[in-house]
Amino acid sequence: MTHDSAASLTELRDRLGVIADLTQASALMSWDQRTYLPPKGNAGRSRAIATIGRLRHDRMTDPSLADVLASLEAADLEGDDAALVRETRRDVDLAARLPRELVGRAAEQFSLAETSWAAARAHDDFASFAPVLRENLVIVREIAQAHAAGGDLYDALHDLYERDSTAAAVEAVFTPLRAELVELVGEIRERGRSIDVSPLLGAFDEGRQERFNLGVARAFGYDLDGGRLDRTTHPFASGIGRGDVRITTRYKGDDLRGALFPTLHEAGHGIYEQNLPAEHAGTPLGRHASLGVHESQSRLWENLVGRSLPFWEWAYPRLQETFPDRLGAVDLEAFHAAMNVVEPSLIRVEADEVTYHLHVMIRFELERALLEGSLDVDDLPGAWNERYEAYLGITPPDDRRGCLQDVHWAGGMIGYFPTYSLGTLLSAQLWEALRRDLGDVDDAMRRGEFGGILSWLIEHVHRHGRRYTPAELTRRATGAELSAEPYLRYAREKYGTIYGL
Amino acid sequence: MTHDSAASLTELRDRLGVIADLTQASALMSWDQRTYLPPKGNAGRSRAIATIGRLRHDRMTDPSLADVLASLEAADLEGDDAALVRETRRDVDLAARLPRELVGRAAEQFSLAETSWAAARAHDDFASFAPVLRENLVIVREIAQAHAAGGDLYDALHDLYERDSTAAAVEAVFTPLRAELVELVGEIRERGRSIDVSPLLGAFDEGRQERFNLGVARAFGYDLDGGRLDRTTHPFASGIGRGDVRITTRYKGDDLRGALFPTLHEAGHGIYEQNLPAEHAGTPLGRHASLGVHESQSRLWENLVGRSLPFWEWAYPRLQETFPDRLGAVDLEAFHAAMNVVEPSLIRVEADEVTYHLHVMIRFELERALLEGSLDVDDLPGAWNERYEAYLGITPPDDRRGCLQDVHWAGGMIGYFPTYSLGTLLSAQLWEALRRDLGDVDDAMRRGEFGGILSWLIEHVHRHGRRYTPAELTRRATGAELSAEPYLRYAREKYGTIYGL
Repeated sequence: MTHDSAASLTELRDRLGVIADLTQASALMSWDQRTYLPPKGNAGRSRAIATIGRLRHDRMTDPSLADVLASLEAADLEGDDAALVRETRRDVDLAARLPRELVGRAAEQFSLAETSWAAARAHDDFASFAPVLRENLVIVREIAQAHAAGGDLYDALHDLYERDSTAAAVEAVFTPLRAELVELVGEIRERGRSIDVSPLLGAFDEGRQERFNLGVARAFGYDLDGGRLDRTTHPFASGIGRGDVRITTRYKGDDLRGALFPTLHEAGHGIYEQNLPAEHAGTPLGRHASLGVHESQSRLWENLVGRSLPFWEWAYPRLQETFPDRLGAVDLEAFHAAMNVVEPSLIRVEADEVTYHLHVMIRFELERALLEGSLDVDDLPGAWNERYEAYLGITPPDDRRGCLQDVHWAGGMIGYFPTYSLGTLLSAQLWEALRRDLGDVDDAMRRGEFGGILSWLIEHVHRHGRRYTPAELTRRATGAELSAEPYLRYAREKYGTIYGL
Repeated sequence: MTHDSAASLTELRDRLGVIADLTQASALMSWDQRTYLPPKGNAGRSRAIATIGRLRHDRMTDPSLADVLASLEAADLEGDDAALVRETRRDVDLAARLPRELVGRAAEQFSLAETSWAAARAHDDFASFAPVLRENLVIVREIAQAHAAGGDLYDALHDLYERDSTAAAVEAVFTPLRAELVELVGEIRERGRSIDVSPLLGAFDEGRQERFNLGVARAFGYDLDGGRLDRTTHPFASGIGRGDVRITTRYKGDDLRGALFPTLHEAGHGIYEQNLPAEHAGTPLGRHASLGVHESQSRLWENLVGRSLPFWEWAYPRLQETFPDRLGAVDLEAFHAAMNVVEPSLIRVEADEVTYHLHVMIRFELERALLEGSLDVDDLPGAWNERYEAYLGITPPDDRRGCLQDVHWAGGMIGYFPTYSLGTLLSAQLWEALRRDLGDVDDAMRRGEFGGILSWLIEHVHRHGRRYTPAELTRRATGAELSAEPYLRYAREKYGTIYGL
């Protein structure tokens, strides 16, 4: 490398460091807005988030950054340096498409909208949220238009979350997946044995739940010296800064699963963030590969590990000790079956592994219709409920458990939902590859040892940050393109056993 | 006002708004670092705080801001507009004296130093903190030199906290005050009746303490819809942004006073911040007049109200209901006397009203010696303990309860401590003026009605923000220069009664 290139790389990293620090400020302000901000602070906070967003955008579109980047593109860089320049170019180009004014307006609107949504959800009051969502869609369309350059608006947005993916690619996966799942759900309903979920229902002390859930998250590898767990309306994970990766959950008074699986899910996200390449912290190369890849990590720990029998062979005695009165007389097999009951339900983040994708498909269809304008915001609750009836055979009794349940549209995130299913499919594909490489990991799980699994994920996923595209990462880690087959194999085998099909 | 001036004022307010938003980000990041940040996030957080500090400094020293300000100074503005320009000029000039590099270095160092201090305090390990404090002093001296322009370094720093005050002015107050206090403490020791503090000692449930303390803070006027209470190593109040004024306290396992008075004290700061002029939010005019004035508000609620007999006539039955087993059999007079016991103690924020100033005087002397270099950091624990023996007749058994107890020097704040005493003196002077204006407020306090007191404080102090200098504000509110006399009258009368002198 020439002396000039080395100096330019240093300058690039310094400039990216300032941008990362602004991102840290903004991420903390958003986290705080969802956790601890007093209500009267909302307007001022949203405004400040918008200001930081504009200042960040100024830095991303600074001509001096473009100059440094251009000089590095002309140099003959290799390896990580070349990747850093390539990934920075992507982010700079994405930023350059958006007018400064739109960046600030969007940040302020989405931030305020989340607060409106939380209140509307708490009071089951969709009408109060409808005008906010309508305004969100106006802004989201502007953002989509800026990115689409005449192309498909949904694709332009979806690509922001899942690089190189399109609505057509999602449909190509979803259509056969849906057919298979409907068949599997039908088999379970018609021929499966009956499973008693009552051991999981009723009151469980929240403090004890939290201690148990956090204990599992730590055993998986979530580092509380660089993280923390708080309570929010909608569970999320946020990599605020180096050494500061936070997760949240919520408690459901009458169901042990309500906080457990979101905690393990978000811990999976947190573990990924905590193991991104430290040497690239504060640069695009130190970030996650895509939201689908992110989701593969959360879903792997939540489901492939956290809903498995070997895992519960280790964890269940601990849970019984935590709630001896409730679970002391419930045997492992009954408990494990209850934890894996397949039944149509209202809430996506609490759904079982099999029906989960149907929740995602509903959102995928509805958000495309909202974006293109073929579905009016006022008609959303009706359209939502119709699809729940059609896909899952149940109708939400209220919007709180219907179209107000998820935060994403309030936060301006359209095109995000498919990544939940794509990531879930990838989690099963990674799991197959991991078991090919490591052999049987069940015994380790039975002993509460998850280090082998974690190391494999770090080696094949986490440490690469954004060095590879999601497709490349998938090929390198699993030897194949992303496919629904591993997931379907896994689901058919697991639920065939549990339901005695 | 000309059309040009109106446009310039709008531009000024917009520019100050961006600066205020950066300040909000920075204030939140610091609050979070003291409350919830996981330990591994400290280095990255300190770096980000430094970055935001530099960006804020860039904005404050932006030539375009200077141009707008100059054009407004040339215009013929009046009233609040003129005050806004004058106060912005002060802040811009203060910022311009500091090199950008120093601003960032200081922010990062002080932020890291607070974390080191908290760990050193927790482990009673002054040696681990000594090199950090030494580095702090190097930077503090650089800041002082930048501001002093050849003048006295301590005065330059003290002026940042208490405008127009000097070490000489502080000494002129402290020297006679000390003589009077030593005399009063002597009288109490020699001729005062014995007071039993045992009702306040021992274990009190922290959750119940918190509910009671917060109930009082709310009754005083602290608005929890625009605030919150958290736990920290050192209690503080922080006006993070509009509608977001947070306070913290800590719990002392064996003494009911340990969390109560810091909570009421910080609530007093919070009430001031919550009632600063909303129309000037985000500008220098919307900020506090000085730290002495700030302290007058915290000390007024903590002491003049919160340690008074009429207040406890209302509050004590509530406290008895909160802790029936502990306090049910203790009568009001005995309780009130215990709450006001005068005795030499180790911890400033827990000190009684009479000995409090001696704690401040010790710090004032030591920080001047540290700054000028006549006291080496390694000799601080010894010098601290000697002065506690000389002034209060007790020797701290460890540094945790000695020179490691306060956060200020760790946070780079030298020249701040005198404001505690100045503010306390002002609180008594304001209290006299308030009672002149309102007549007897005891009956209202006995009924738990604090609105009259709050309204007077808003009218005479809060709503003015930084429109007046501390000296002007004092004259306008009380009709006199700041003096120790009202405080001494108050202390002699109150403690004469309690101790039967």
